[in-house]
Amino acid sequence: MHEAATNLLIEALGEKKVRRGDAERFAASLDNIKLSFPPDAVIFPTCDNDVATTLRLANSHGVPVTIRGSGTSTTGAATPVCGGWAMSFAEWADCEIEPDARIAVVRPGAITQKINDLAAKFGLFFPPDPASVKHCTIGGNVATNAGGLRAAKYGVTRDYVLALEGFLPTGEKVRWGAATKKFAAGYDLRDLWIGAEGTLGVVTKIVLRLVPLPEARRTFLCAFSSDEAALNAACALMRERFTPSVLEFMDALSIDCARAEKAAGGGIVAGGAFSLLTRGDSVLLVENDGDAASVESQAAATRKWARDNARAFLETGDAAESEALWEVRRACSPAMFRIADSKLNEDVVVPQKNYLALLAAMREVSRETGLATPIFGHAADGNLHVHIMYNRGDAQQRRLAQRAVAGVMRKVVDLGGAISGEHGIGLAKSPFFQIQHSPAEIAAMRAIKRALDPNNILGRGKIFEPFNVWDHVPADVKLPWENR
Amino acid sequence: MHEAATNLLIEALGEKKVRRGDAERFAASLDNIKLSFPPDAVIFPTCDNDVATTLRLANSHGVPVTIRGSGTSTTGAATPVCGGWAMSFAEWADCEIEPDARIAVVRPGAITQKINDLAAKFGLFFPPDPASVKHCTIGGNVATNAGGLRAAKYGVTRDYVLALEGFLPTGEKVRWGAATKKFAAGYDLRDLWIGAEGTLGVVTKIVLRLVPLPEARRTFLCAFSSDEAALNAACALMRERFTPSVLEFMDALSIDCARAEKAAGGGIVAGGAFSLLTRGDSVLLVENDGDAASVESQAAATRKWARDNARAFLETGDAAESEALWEVRRACSPAMFRIADSKLNEDVVVPQKNYLALLAAMREVSRETGLATPIFGHAADGNLHVHIMYNRGDAQQRRLAQRAVAGVMRKVVDLGGAISGEHGIGLAKSPFFQIQHSPAEIAAMRAIKRALDPNNILGRGKIFEPFNVWDHVPADVKLPWENR
Repeated sequence: MHEAATNLLIEALGEKKVRRGDAERFAASLDNIKLSFPPDAVIFPTCDNDVATTLRLANSHGVPVTIRGSGTSTTGAATPVCGGWAMSFAEWADCEIEPDARIAVVRPGAITQKINDLAAKFGLFFPPDPASVKHCTIGGNVATNAGGLRAAKYGVTRDYVLALEGFLPTGEKVRWGAATKKFAAGYDLRDLWIGAEGTLGVVTKIVLRLVPLPEARRTFLCAFSSDEAALNAACALMRERFTPSVLEFMDALSIDCARAEKAAGGGIVAGGAFSLLTRGDSVLLVENDGDAASVESQAAATRKWARDNARAFLETGDAAESEALWEVRRACSPAMFRIADSKLNEDVVVPQKNYLALLAAMREVSRETGLATPIFGHAADGNLHVHIMYNRGDAQQRRLAQRAVAGVMRKVVDLGGAISGEHGIGLAKSPFFQIQHSPAEIAAMRAIKRALDPNNILGRGKIFEPFNVWDHVPADVKLPWENR
Repeated sequence: MHEAATNLLIEALGEKKVRRGDAERFAASLDNIKLSFPPDAVIFPTCDNDVATTLRLANSHGVPVTIRGSGTSTTGAATPVCGGWAMSFAEWADCEIEPDARIAVVRPGAITQKINDLAAKFGLFFPPDPASVKHCTIGGNVATNAGGLRAAKYGVTRDYVLALEGFLPTGEKVRWGAATKKFAAGYDLRDLWIGAEGTLGVVTKIVLRLVPLPEARRTFLCAFSSDEAALNAACALMRERFTPSVLEFMDALSIDCARAEKAAGGGIVAGGAFSLLTRGDSVLLVENDGDAASVESQAAATRKWARDNARAFLETGDAAESEALWEVRRACSPAMFRIADSKLNEDVVVPQKNYLALLAAMREVSRETGLATPIFGHAADGNLHVHIMYNRGDAQQRRLAQRAVAGVMRKVVDLGGAISGEHGIGLAKSPFFQIQHSPAEIAAMRAIKRALDPNNILGRGKIFEPFNVWDHVPADVKLPWENR
């Protein structure tokens, strides 16, 4: 397919930038959900002209183009599901820090952690911290409006993007916003592009706002005798005058898994933190950060809150000790596979007042399906990651899990929330899109898509067209960020 | 014009909501730039159905609709330049605070100051603070993405809008976002609507994020022996670890006007603050806010910075004394009319590194035209308001001022900035829009406008069609916020 267009592209860009080897096509055929759809060719642009040429050819020949960074997407957004060309920004990763202006000027392939490593030399950082921070690219963060643990205090990717430069799907260069906080000159296509999952334009340059690294930090690990007690305590803490930089909830089931993994010696090193916990405990991991004086006053209030609300707690201002407390949180996700070999991880969001209702709904799912539904996530911003555990080989469990998800999505929307807080829609959540949005809303979005991408070149098959991931068998491959 | 449609609308909504009296048509015919274009009728919706009905009729009959709040727009965005209907939200102004969730659920006609008065009862506030805060509506703030003095620390309106509910130009109801910080489910039409000046949809409900009122505040009034010294000092302060909540620059010319007004007894009460200043002084007004401990450490750093950089300074943590320091800033804008009877006030933005270049450019304008070009504004976010003073009755001065503005806009864009930081485009800046944006960018924006508003109902004649305000004579009217 698209042989003629691909040959023209090779003529224009050269074989070094337009690759058709099986290994490279396979690598670009999938992302973290591992559904493999090999593209005809993988393009590795390293300058504006590469992107403009690719898009102009794609647009005139009707070749679908899928943009990708490292492929850490959990929704299939980076999967070339309609074939055509994959455009990988892996080799365009420059990053320049302007310390006085407190900005970073980066290319889309820059790894988020590397931007932070460079910024740290000037005492600065880019706050959004998706779990994949060591592997994901900033272009991917922009595409999904990546969030992470610190969003309630620090915001999400959108809050740090000052300007975007890039190309319309038709290959015309554009720039949205400026390297200034304020900009009130025309429609905000910057924010329209952010979170559009690479379907409305191709970003080639990003101006990021950076902020000073906090001077001090204090970490609390707090045990509660029930999930309800922990969630109520989380809401109480959010009524303080300050916002904790971290407020991670782990339900009793997640903690049970982590404790079992620890007992089995499963690679978890932090003994001290686990000794706090007993069977049935639910946990909140809290962090205060800021200047030294402010952290002291925040910590005093947090300590009082912990005394009033928690069954027991540990506290530290020491970096190594803090790492030990974090180990509990980090253990939860991998430890869940003690229950079953597969999990659905849904990054739903609900308003604070509905935390308990979501908890009840997930318990109901568990009762109805017999499947475990552990929950952990960001209790400061409502982005609770709910899981449904099942064994892939068990057809009945698969069916039950599959059926349960749609119900969870409906519940989340009923509770005034969002079916995705940070992962986006991609392929995996496309069947639920019309639960989130009314026909008028979807029609408006599609009208915008058609207006900017009349030939439906970018991200074809994503977001708007329901795609059932259950109908496809994931590839048997170990991705760089998988350590089990 | 539009007689048939207007009659149908009256039939549907009643004469109480669809008014055609001369006084009401005149009041809705203009905004702060005072160019009067009377609409055929003024609609005062108080429920969703009123808005839906109006838009459906307008869309099917091709009636232009101009949305307005209090009419404080400085760009003519609220002026019904193509006639048709004006839709005023003045009578739909409900505001409900949810203190635990720290949100305000408001209708577009709510006055921004009133939202803050209500929020203050719960120790909360909505940080954006346009100069018109006592008169402007939150709907207008959303339409222009209003900023104000505290944007560098607290952000702009966009940073506080969680969700919008409203209607597409075709009359269909939509909701963008949820009452949660995170939302990654589909295109971000929330942010597309924000700053679109009422041309892409009609907002009927806004969910605002509120933040705790700062516990403490410290104000510094700092005198510098030159504009360059003051701007360099502002940049130095922005390299501290904290961001001042206020960092207002007033150039020597603005201060001279304020001092002259003071000497003439022109309604300025604060003697103490003015006694600090001598001829040729340029001024920075600085505020630190936050929790008590943090303000103390910020103030210590600010004091050291002032000692190192300022010719002299005053400092206070007392609210009444702080008011006296603010008087200097407040005096600047009205005092400028000592120079001439009219001013162009352009809310341009440039990156910090180009502050001195903008200063030099404005001096060049002054040399070339012989007109005074005082500057004051928000030195923490680059939003420096540059002025060109002229006498309206003097045809030569008008011509010179008019010609100079376009040059200023070109310079601002050359310096990597924006032709508007917070006022928007409306009519007044429409001739400069193509200086800010390339043909491809404008074509993309127009494509979106057509996609959402195929019959060009909302805000017809704004943003994209160059309109020369100089060709029109302003109405002789005193608006509620004018005290001179």
